[in-house]
Amino acid sequence: MSGTYARKLLRVNLSTGEIKTEEIPDKLLRDYIGGRGLGAYLLSRELPPEADPLGPENVLVFATGPLTGTPAPTGGRYMVLGKSPLTGLIASSNSGGHFGAELKAAGFDLVVLESRASEPVYLSIKDGQAELKPADHLWGLDTHETVSRLLEDFGDPGAKVACIGPAGENLVRFACIINDRHRAAGRSGVGAIMGAKRLKAIVVRGHKRYQAPEEKVFMDFVRQKTDILRRDPITGEGLPKLGTKVLDSIINAHGLYPTRNFQTGVFEATEEVSGEALVEKGYLKKNRGCYACPIRCGRVTELPTGHKGEGPEYESGWSLGACCGVKDLIAITEANYLCNRLGLDTISCGVTIACAMELYEKGHLPKEDLAGGPELRFGSSEAIIYYTHALARRQGLGDRLAEGALRLAQAYGHPELAMVVKGQELPAYDPRGAQGHALQYATSNRGGCHVRGYLIAPEILGVPEKLDPQETAGKAQWVKIFQDLTAVIDSTGLCLFTSFALGAEDYAQLLSAATGFNYTVEEMLLCGERIWNLERLFNLKAGLDPSKDTLPDRFLQEPLPEGPQKGAVVRLSEMLPEYYRERGWDPSGRPTEEKLRELGLI
Amino acid sequence: MSGTYARKLLRVNLSTGEIKTEEIPDKLLRDYIGGRGLGAYLLSRELPPEADPLGPENVLVFATGPLTGTPAPTGGRYMVLGKSPLTGLIASSNSGGHFGAELKAAGFDLVVLESRASEPVYLSIKDGQAELKPADHLWGLDTHETVSRLLEDFGDPGAKVACIGPAGENLVRFACIINDRHRAAGRSGVGAIMGAKRLKAIVVRGHKRYQAPEEKVFMDFVRQKTDILRRDPITGEGLPKLGTKVLDSIINAHGLYPTRNFQTGVFEATEEVSGEALVEKGYLKKNRGCYACPIRCGRVTELPTGHKGEGPEYESGWSLGACCGVKDLIAITEANYLCNRLGLDTISCGVTIACAMELYEKGHLPKEDLAGGPELRFGSSEAIIYYTHALARRQGLGDRLAEGALRLAQAYGHPELAMVVKGQELPAYDPRGAQGHALQYATSNRGGCHVRGYLIAPEILGVPEKLDPQETAGKAQWVKIFQDLTAVIDSTGLCLFTSFALGAEDYAQLLSAATGFNYTVEEMLLCGERIWNLERLFNLKAGLDPSKDTLPDRFLQEPLPEGPQKGAVVRLSEMLPEYYRERGWDPSGRPTEEKLRELGLI
Repeated sequence: MSGTYARKLLRVNLSTGEIKTEEIPDKLLRDYIGGRGLGAYLLSRELPPEADPLGPENVLVFATGPLTGTPAPTGGRYMVLGKSPLTGLIASSNSGGHFGAELKAAGFDLVVLESRASEPVYLSIKDGQAELKPADHLWGLDTHETVSRLLEDFGDPGAKVACIGPAGENLVRFACIINDRHRAAGRSGVGAIMGAKRLKAIVVRGHKRYQAPEEKVFMDFVRQKTDILRRDPITGEGLPKLGTKVLDSIINAHGLYPTRNFQTGVFEATEEVSGEALVEKGYLKKNRGCYACPIRCGRVTELPTGHKGEGPEYESGWSLGACCGVKDLIAITEANYLCNRLGLDTISCGVTIACAMELYEKGHLPKEDLAGGPELRFGSSEAIIYYTHALARRQGLGDRLAEGALRLAQAYGHPELAMVVKGQELPAYDPRGAQGHALQYATSNRGGCHVRGYLIAPEILGVPEKLDPQETAGKAQWVKIFQDLTAVIDSTGLCLFTSFALGAEDYAQLLSAATGFNYTVEEMLLCGERIWNLERLFNLKAGLDPSKDTLPDRFLQEPLPEGPQKGAVVRLSEMLPEYYRERGWDPSGRPTEEKLRELGLI
Repeated sequence: MSGTYARKLLRVNLSTGEIKTEEIPDKLLRDYIGGRGLGAYLLSRELPPEADPLGPENVLVFATGPLTGTPAPTGGRYMVLGKSPLTGLIASSNSGGHFGAELKAAGFDLVVLESRASEPVYLSIKDGQAELKPADHLWGLDTHETVSRLLEDFGDPGAKVACIGPAGENLVRFACIINDRHRAAGRSGVGAIMGAKRLKAIVVRGHKRYQAPEEKVFMDFVRQKTDILRRDPITGEGLPKLGTKVLDSIINAHGLYPTRNFQTGVFEATEEVSGEALVEKGYLKKNRGCYACPIRCGRVTELPTGHKGEGPEYESGWSLGACCGVKDLIAITEANYLCNRLGLDTISCGVTIACAMELYEKGHLPKEDLAGGPELRFGSSEAIIYYTHALARRQGLGDRLAEGALRLAQAYGHPELAMVVKGQELPAYDPRGAQGHALQYATSNRGGCHVRGYLIAPEILGVPEKLDPQETAGKAQWVKIFQDLTAVIDSTGLCLFTSFALGAEDYAQLLSAATGFNYTVEEMLLCGERIWNLERLFNLKAGLDPSKDTLPDRFLQEPLPEGPQKGAVVRLSEMLPEYYRERGWDPSGRPTEEKLRELGLI
């Protein structure tokens, strides 16, 4: 009884060229659900934790969930997992579009890529059959060119492609994987892992459809949850209308919109770069949805320069905008397009450039190191485009920027100016403005990240209920629940944005009906907790020092200089011990034997 | 004995569709040389001076010179003439590339376009044969798309195209005509005349070659002059290496690099936008030369955004850069590309936006008039791209910007903020920094213009000898000579840039050998003076009030606030009466009967 699972794993050894198909046991599916959970399980078994992330021992996993490729609302997502070259910890990046659903339709829940090819290759998958093909003709092409070329080669315009751009080839530590031209498995450098393996792309086509054991019950839930999403003010109105960029004005008004490398939380030019501005200036042309998505938050845009593309999303618009002090929405959008074409994580890209700007303005980065490039001043629209391009190609100073903010700041003797957690650049919420969110940053298993537990929902947006963002009491429990539930959602194949409107019960219903595993909410959340702990174990084995469950000193010591939360610092010590207790970990941040036993991890 | 003339004029009535060929008498050729001179003669005979520039009575002339299409160095130029919708005076714009030489090879010195088509048309010329064809499928296309489409239609990739973009179609008063994709007959709105006539393009192909009467003598001169150009420090080194943008650093260092709508003559960020920066940042890919040109000052550029094109040249880079306070060389280059694609004069475009910025910053232009567009702040890289696009399409505030700086500033009650002479926007030299150049601005027959007499050469660059830029004595004579010689050069089909290295004797030699008219230097310069006076007569008949031989009050009353020429204002009254005397005009600026008789104009 496998329901909407393919129950199949495709294993590809890039060195030997061996390709085989394996069955996935029901027990694993039930315990780890799929996607992020099953991928983490696989890595914990097959990837030596001490492996060099850019070496052949790293394992790269593409993983769909049981709801991927079903009509469940937003059921098109997949994960990419491996050991991150940015953090040295587990990487697990989520993406939408249509690639995930197509992979599932081709007959696989997971694709496991081992070792390293001697020459560039791509993987072609068609209805259960896979083969490796030479990719010399694709090497060097950007992601859009790669898709166009591959679809020609493949001969079926309905095929879907996930690929890397020049950034992944050049092992930029925050290179991403782009699928469907504009969607990204963005964070933690999964594109660099793919580049190190010399795997340029995966092209996939499939026609398999999956039935839930009780199809009518499942479809009733699908309709019911779709309806909830359509009626919800965020998923039914805010996100369709302005996309994720509905947030610029809100987050800025709350004073936690990180500006000029997190030096302040208020950007004076938010009005000129907001989601509203994208509409008023006429750059937004229409919305676009991923597979089976009723929210349709994607932005199809076109600039007066004639360039077209998708985005910027909230995070991208912020990292390349306010974080760099840039208020030119054309330049921000061009830089965003460039990230998509070159295959770069926009968050890390913008925050790394912002770090370089602070280093430069403070005199730590000498002008001669710019190698003829534009001055790295906050507000320079030219700099964001120039250095985005330069770092993807590792030209001039770009070679250092390609290493990410932490290594850059270290190279110039000022690691404190890198706005990172565990080596990964922080996203668009100043942690001083939301204590729970700060705790989640500090404890996220993949380093600085907002989508492992989006505490902004209760602390700022008031969903599902309004919490005081400056209160620390009780936040540890909120963080744990959010982290566990998010681990579940990421494992199902649904989009995290559904959680603005759906609750745990909704996910349990969809999941149970689709898989035939009759999850209670408790069992499902236990899966989430199991996944979280498994990721933590991987990280500890990979050498994580739990003292890294913290934030840059800026947030702990420098009060927010302005805005409605002026004066705030992160009071992490008031929350972290409680968090460890909530997690059933010892005071040093390690899971106890008792907890691991409870989760079936030993 | 016609030498390198075709001796043929193609006359096209766009209303009736009638097309005929006429012979051009030798006497006219000898007296007016060709190009600008012959075109002015034609207009003075056929165009009612009071005609509405955008009405059917206007006449549009494409005119080559006797050296166009010959091996004479830079011999590829042509002129476009008519009555300017920007100034209401004579328009005569010069362009390079390959179109002019091709038109000559097709068998015509001149093309005269009368009346107005009822539907969009284009003119196709092939080896002496011409026909009008429907252009509905081209209307709305940008200049690059138009060329691609037309070359397909025409079926011969060797054909050359001159066309308008959306700006010309929309009657933007400073719309230009673009030939060979990147070369512009830029100034005075000749593109709007073409748009008003509903003539989208001229495509031309020809194979005729012309022989000088004494071919060997001519070719000896060609080799000799080419050699002079190659050995000259400006035409042989400065221009090939950095293009016209060699000037940014020089003009800024002399304190006459107009910044923020001519509020000062020093731009603090010149280093970031100069010709040197274009090289260092890697945007310059290679040089490109026009037909028969040994100088090759054209810039082939490519941006990190992936966009490719030509330019920016000095003027374009300045108008969209320093004049708007913008220091983002990517945005400047994108805006320049946009001007080429949309068919806009870059000088007038940038200066008009700069005028809008000063109006906005001073509170004269209210925010609601921006219609959702970006704020018009000096330095806004977004604004230059956004409003360039908007004005070509007359969207929002763009509809007012499309009228040019003077009409814009008048609409907001502050005409003194329009940096124009006779309605045409001034180019990249603050007149307070060069008194002779200021006099030439004030007296130019097509309004604010630097290429009707480039006094910057002696006053700043020291060519052919160094004059004190703040001296007024003797400048009237210099201006007259420069204006007359330039009228000659513009009539020959050579490029004005040759005059950095060649003198009057050189031009007389080339011209005499090519045409068989044995010009003395005196006779040749008399032709130049004749042309100048003919243009003046046209302007006076068109209603020019000679009191408009002046400059905006800013230059007469506000001293340069900084730089090596700090404190200077234009001392026009010390030069203008002397200029009128030098010209043989009466004290009110009208040619005397005696002068007209001497020139054979009555």
